[in-house]
Amino acid sequence: MVKLTAEELTEYLDDVFPQVRGEFTIEEVADMRIRTRLNVGERHLRPGGTVSGPSIFALADVSVYLAVLAMIGREALAVTTNCSIDFMRKPVADADLIAECRLLKMGRVLAVGEVLIFSAGMDQPVARASMTYSIPPKAG
Amino acid sequence: MVKLTAEELTEYLDDVFPQVRGEFTIEEVADMRIRTRLNVGERHLRPGGTVSGPSIFALADVSVYLAVLAMIGREALAVTTNCSIDFMRKPVADADLIAECRLLKMGRVLAVGEVLIFSAGMDQPVARASMTYSIPPKAG
Amino acid sequence: MVKLTAEELTEYLDDVFPQVRGEFTIEEVADMRIRTRLNVGERHLRPGGTVSGPSIFALADVSVYLAVLAMIGREALAVTTNCSIDFMRKPVADADLIAECRLLKMGRVLAVGEVLIFSAGMDQPVARASMTYSIPPKAG
Amino acid sequence: MVKLTAEELTEYLDDVFPQVRGEFTIEEVADMRIRTRLNVGERHLRPGGTVSGPSIFALADVSVYLAVLAMIGREALAVTTNCSIDFMRKPVADADLIAECRLLKMGRVLAVGEVLIFSAGMDQPVARASMTYSIPPKAG
Repeated sequence: MVKLTAEELTEYLDDVFPQVRGEFTIEEVADMRIRTRLNVGERHLRPGGTVSGPSIFALADVSVYLAVLAMIGREALAVTTNCSIDFMRKPVADADLIAECRLLKMGRVLAVGEVLIFSAGMDQPVARASMTYSIPPKAG
Repeated sequence: MVKLTAEELTEYLDDVFPQVRGEFTIEEVADMRIRTRLNVGERHLRPGGTVSGPSIFALADVSVYLAVLAMIGREALAVTTNCSIDFMRKPVADADLIAECRLLKMGRVLAVGEVLIFSAGMDQPVARASMTYSIPPKAG
Repeated sequence: MVKLTAEELTEYLDDVFPQVRGEFTIEEVADMRIRTRLNVGERHLRPGGTVSGPSIFALADVSVYLAVLAMIGREALAVTTNCSIDFMRKPVADADLIAECRLLKMGRVLAVGEVLIFSAGMDQPVARASMTYSIPPKAG
Repeated sequence: MVKLTAEELTEYLDDVFPQVRGEFTIEEVADMRIRTRLNVGERHLRPGGTVSGPSIFALADVSVYLAVLAMIGREALAVTTNCSIDFMRKPVADADLIAECRLLKMGRVLAVGEVLIFSAGMDQPVARASMTYSIPPKAG
């Protein structure tokens, strides 16, 4: 089912979004699932060492994007149309964030994924997100 | 951890919300989890035998409410403050709906739960929902 | 721009969803906007005379549906794919609910509407909702 | 009603979040409302010159945060607990983003704001967001 490996996805991401190169590590890809890591650095932090909301959003967003890509292949386009996110706990200072993402629907025009985000090594999620991606029809 | 059994929850629900008596069956209660069934009847249906959106919302809402109640006990109040819901597939005609609910956070003032909803006997979820409940401080 | 009047929308709603006949009144239809009333009755209430969450959801849902229909016409299909709703205040006991709905996007495949819901005669909103409708391509 | 001017808010933001200094301009503060600008730079862009999702999220988030702060004053804490966001149109390349934010509820423990985001000079919104902030009780 999976059309792209973690390595191929990483290469593709680096190509298409050079701005985020090195920010995310794809840890595991499986059918309708992906695990992604935010390599937390200075620019993701807020006072107190906590990871910023926009960085958590970015991790959720890229995870669903990559999960969709893994299923439909590289030539495809996919754009976020909706996100709902609950911030539940403060991230641990100076720890990476891990996103456990699962696609609940991989339709022809819409994909829906849910993501739990953890501080590395912790049991309780920092945040949960659900995201809808729209998949435009291929030209030609 | 669980303060109320399925039977006690059912009794409490019947007491407090007599309007929905018989609509929901509590199938299983565990730590931070509950499984609830919507006993689909004529009034939940839309043309074509599909279950209405408001009925799916009601099932998600009552499931998180009951999961919270199971954890904090009967004397407590809890009101929905936020819901996000994705409708992903058409429910099967003439089948009950099953909600698999999990609390992701059970805080002092806010609780967050997520719910997957299935047509009975199906593998793919009809909908997913996340809900926040606010728990007002006890009077006195 | 508007393809259907309030009267035509009412007729259509009665035809297609006979289950909700009499529940909603369409008060005003304009370009990308609609105002809808939930005629609150016994079955919408919870203890204390407050309107139930599922009834508030139903009002938001039908409002966006009707706003979309007013713009694209009767022959079209439209299904809710996502809803986010914030419950902010307790509805006034024994008052109807008024939904002020505005379409923010009326695309070829997706429509997005936002809704503010008030207890009749009150200034402060009871709830806000945003909803996405998917518009399937016409057969044939 | 408003406890802090645009100038005071800007100063406070620079103090507390030096990481985002210069990124946002507070254009107007009024009772329960604020208008904020994202000064779009290289780091907010994606291929094609469009503004990234995380940057749009950041603008919505900071806008509600500042609107809450303007109402309750500087000594207060406020943390995002929930966000729902719809991405509706592609931002215009090389244009700033403007957020029109309105608080719908400014309660003792929860605040709810909604935001429409536009590319500068455009009529149709790029995105809409709603956010809940939790306001922890003051220590002491």
